[in-house]
Amino acid sequence: MNEAEPPFATRPSVNGLAAPLVDALIGSATTLRLGLARSARGATLIDAGIDMRGGLEAGRRIAEICMGGLGTVTLVPGEGTTQVHVHSADPVLACLASQYAGWSIAEGDGRDAFRALASGPGRALARREALFDQLGYADRADRAVFVLEVERPPPATVIEKVARDCGLDVERIAFILTPTRSLAGTVQIVARVLEVALHKAHTLGFPLAAIVDGAGWAPLPPPAPDFVTAMGRTNDAILFGGHTTLFVDTTDDAARTLADALPASASRDYGKPFARIFKDYGYDFYKIDPLLFAPAEVRVCNLGTGAVFEAGRRDLDRLRESFAK
Amino acid sequence: MNEAEPPFATRPSVNGLAAPLVDALIGSATTLRLGLARSARGATLIDAGIDMRGGLEAGRRIAEICMGGLGTVTLVPGEGTTQVHVHSADPVLACLASQYAGWSIAEGDGRDAFRALASGPGRALARREALFDQLGYADRADRAVFVLEVERPPPATVIEKVARDCGLDVERIAFILTPTRSLAGTVQIVARVLEVALHKAHTLGFPLAAIVDGAGWAPLPPPAPDFVTAMGRTNDAILFGGHTTLFVDTTDDAARTLADALPASASRDYGKPFARIFKDYGYDFYKIDPLLFAPAEVRVCNLGTGAVFEAGRRDLDRLRESFAK
Amino acid sequence: MNEAEPPFATRPSVNGLAAPLVDALIGSATTLRLGLARSARGATLIDAGIDMRGGLEAGRRIAEICMGGLGTVTLVPGEGTTQVHVHSADPVLACLASQYAGWSIAEGDGRDAFRALASGPGRALARREALFDQLGYADRADRAVFVLEVERPPPATVIEKVARDCGLDVERIAFILTPTRSLAGTVQIVARVLEVALHKAHTLGFPLAAIVDGAGWAPLPPPAPDFVTAMGRTNDAILFGGHTTLFVDTTDDAARTLADALPASASRDYGKPFARIFKDYGYDFYKIDPLLFAPAEVRVCNLGTGAVFEAGRRDLDRLRESFAK
Repeated sequence: MNEAEPPFATRPSVNGLAAPLVDALIGSATTLRLGLARSARGATLIDAGIDMRGGLEAGRRIAEICMGGLGTVTLVPGEGTTQVHVHSADPVLACLASQYAGWSIAEGDGRDAFRALASGPGRALARREALFDQLGYADRADRAVFVLEVERPPPATVIEKVARDCGLDVERIAFILTPTRSLAGTVQIVARVLEVALHKAHTLGFPLAAIVDGAGWAPLPPPAPDFVTAMGRTNDAILFGGHTTLFVDTTDDAARTLADALPASASRDYGKPFARIFKDYGYDFYKIDPLLFAPAEVRVCNLGTGAVFEAGRRDLDRLRESFAK
Repeated sequence: MNEAEPPFATRPSVNGLAAPLVDALIGSATTLRLGLARSARGATLIDAGIDMRGGLEAGRRIAEICMGGLGTVTLVPGEGTTQVHVHSADPVLACLASQYAGWSIAEGDGRDAFRALASGPGRALARREALFDQLGYADRADRAVFVLEVERPPPATVIEKVARDCGLDVERIAFILTPTRSLAGTVQIVARVLEVALHKAHTLGFPLAAIVDGAGWAPLPPPAPDFVTAMGRTNDAILFGGHTTLFVDTTDDAARTLADALPASASRDYGKPFARIFKDYGYDFYKIDPLLFAPAEVRVCNLGTGAVFEAGRRDLDRLRESFAK
Repeated sequence: MNEAEPPFATRPSVNGLAAPLVDALIGSATTLRLGLARSARGATLIDAGIDMRGGLEAGRRIAEICMGGLGTVTLVPGEGTTQVHVHSADPVLACLASQYAGWSIAEGDGRDAFRALASGPGRALARREALFDQLGYADRADRAVFVLEVERPPPATVIEKVARDCGLDVERIAFILTPTRSLAGTVQIVARVLEVALHKAHTLGFPLAAIVDGAGWAPLPPPAPDFVTAMGRTNDAILFGGHTTLFVDTTDDAARTLADALPASASRDYGKPFARIFKDYGYDFYKIDPLLFAPAEVRVCNLGTGAVFEAGRRDLDRLRESFAK
């Protein structure tokens, strides 16, 4: 540690905390039905649902890795389906510095193009997003791990670019591959129910330093082989079925304003199943209101005053409609 | 590993995965209020409710051992009672190759007879059931562990026969003894809510290779000192109160057919409390419709198409009637 | 172990079981946002919410330490809020010999007075409470840990007195400090939902030896910066929102009598929010009916007969009123 940079020295290392979890995942590859491979230059590739089956438990563990070893993801009973419950020792770091799928890595055009939004601890080493300056966080670690929602491994040039941005040799990088249609992918996406609330709070201009803690849950949707349906259901699980409680330390006005704006229902695009919205925008993801990505129901507890603000509500009818196609 | 048998080499060892959990159980015997003894020839006997108290946590850990180290068993709040939630990294292996009480071990006749249906990882070493050919699974391990729902340890000749069938010395065998009336027994039986669904699917002729994953839960019934009442309540907890979600990869016709046939209510014997059914059949277990042993409510998600099929429903009134005697 | 004292030799050591959990807590201090300090004479001071943020996960782990390593505390979804579920391998030891805040440590008068009710495993080394003779339990360990619901570290003289009573050097003592207003404090208080039931059963004269096991849960209340409000809400979470199931081995008469008397609603002080009761008694804690401290809803399962007795009910309206101030 460089003592000239004290703010970094007093924060946990998301890649350091994730490393033993990645080793355990690799050690349990047979048990968890994961594929292990090396890229040409030696990056670790973990297949959690492309050619291998993976499963719910694989997804649960990958979600905890994606939260930089700072999160706890539990499967519990819900209203007619298993639910995914999430909390974290440090939500801002776990969700925004690590779990958020915020780094666009891409190569090529047309049919052969590789496009992915990288999530996971490695982002805090690469720091290619403006978000990291706002977070005031940089990781130091000799290994990096990423989660990619993709149907094939990244090409060699993308892997090399990622390693370069992390300041590490290629063989120090691991990619966990979880297609949206896979069970592991479904679990690790729904486990973002807390992250979407934090990211929306940030987008709304709420100061991250005022977010102290949080917890949330959402139902596990049925996976679908079709990408648009799968993406629709995993989003709807959160938009129509997700709950997030945030513990903040601020004024009551700021807490109330946050609560009122936070639920998915506060977005202009709320109401239709996500897959329909996506289709109606001509499959252009970036036309969707970014404020749609949020839990159905939120509860903001102000530690500064003890006041509680609730907004939104879960809509099990719409959820059922989405899950039935 | 013998490279001539590749299918076995790529599957986890249920006894190997259970071994550290058994060691931890033994190491926590005082804490978990378990009794430890050696049989005359050196088999390990773990008393989880005969002369010792055991408890809920002992039962939770024994359930995870019984699933060959492939399962996660959690106690969570439910409708007026603690519920047992179960999922597994590999349900077919965890539930059918390990957890299912499928191996009849018996000796003698009349009053002194010892009869038990052995469950747990050791079954996959002994392989005395036709099920194992259908599973295409054989374990290799230098230790075996069994769970027995009994009121006394197995006699020496039964232990020796079990060891012989496992191809191991007697001192490499452990038996965990959980009477049906005990708290540990109650938890580990109710944790079979996923297993009964898989076993019934198999009985119905649904191909096991098409079952990818699953999860389930059931309420913890009040234990009863009387064997018939205790057996009745643990079964009713699943038949009237259990939920199972299965993730399959098949045609929609096959998935719908499975869902419709899977709930306990699809059995001709459904309706009365289990203890009454048992009594009405003159206490002859084998007269009961095997298709009765199933969760109340099922959800079959077809990964191949994204379709979801639901059938059955939980009946809390009947459950309450059963639990009140 | 001294073989002349067999009863002690066959019970787990609550401080021994807690020690690795305390080490892990200290090792995760940065991650869990805890402060670490040494008192002048070398006692370990862990700040979980005075100057440091701590959080839900810190509170969950501290609750397991407070139960002497014999408890499992889980955060799960509930009715509009995260719930805290608790069970234990040995509830009487976990809750009464360890978790109960039963040891009054105090020094000085007026403004500068230090007053705290110490909870945690260290109590079983100090044994300054009559309760320990009734429990027939004494711990032997070379380290002690206490949880204190305080806003500042204990003064040197209190620390020295505690160490002396434990028969240990000061540097072998650790204090975990969790203000009532803090997130960690809130979690570890609500995790007492099982303990209050056991303590009330003991107060009612129910024999502890007849209590075999138990489990319970309560909603996580919103913390409040004001001590009276915070104390009110954490109590109300249990009094109006808590459930406890006890497994006992006794006569049905004794089990029914226990169930009827056990819920908070059986107290003469039940009905108003706790903060109002406290105020109406002129902020004199000791005027409050001790029988008020109990879960809203109880279920007593008699292992001796299989009978179940239920009493009380959760009152979500009153809970909502309390949490809204």
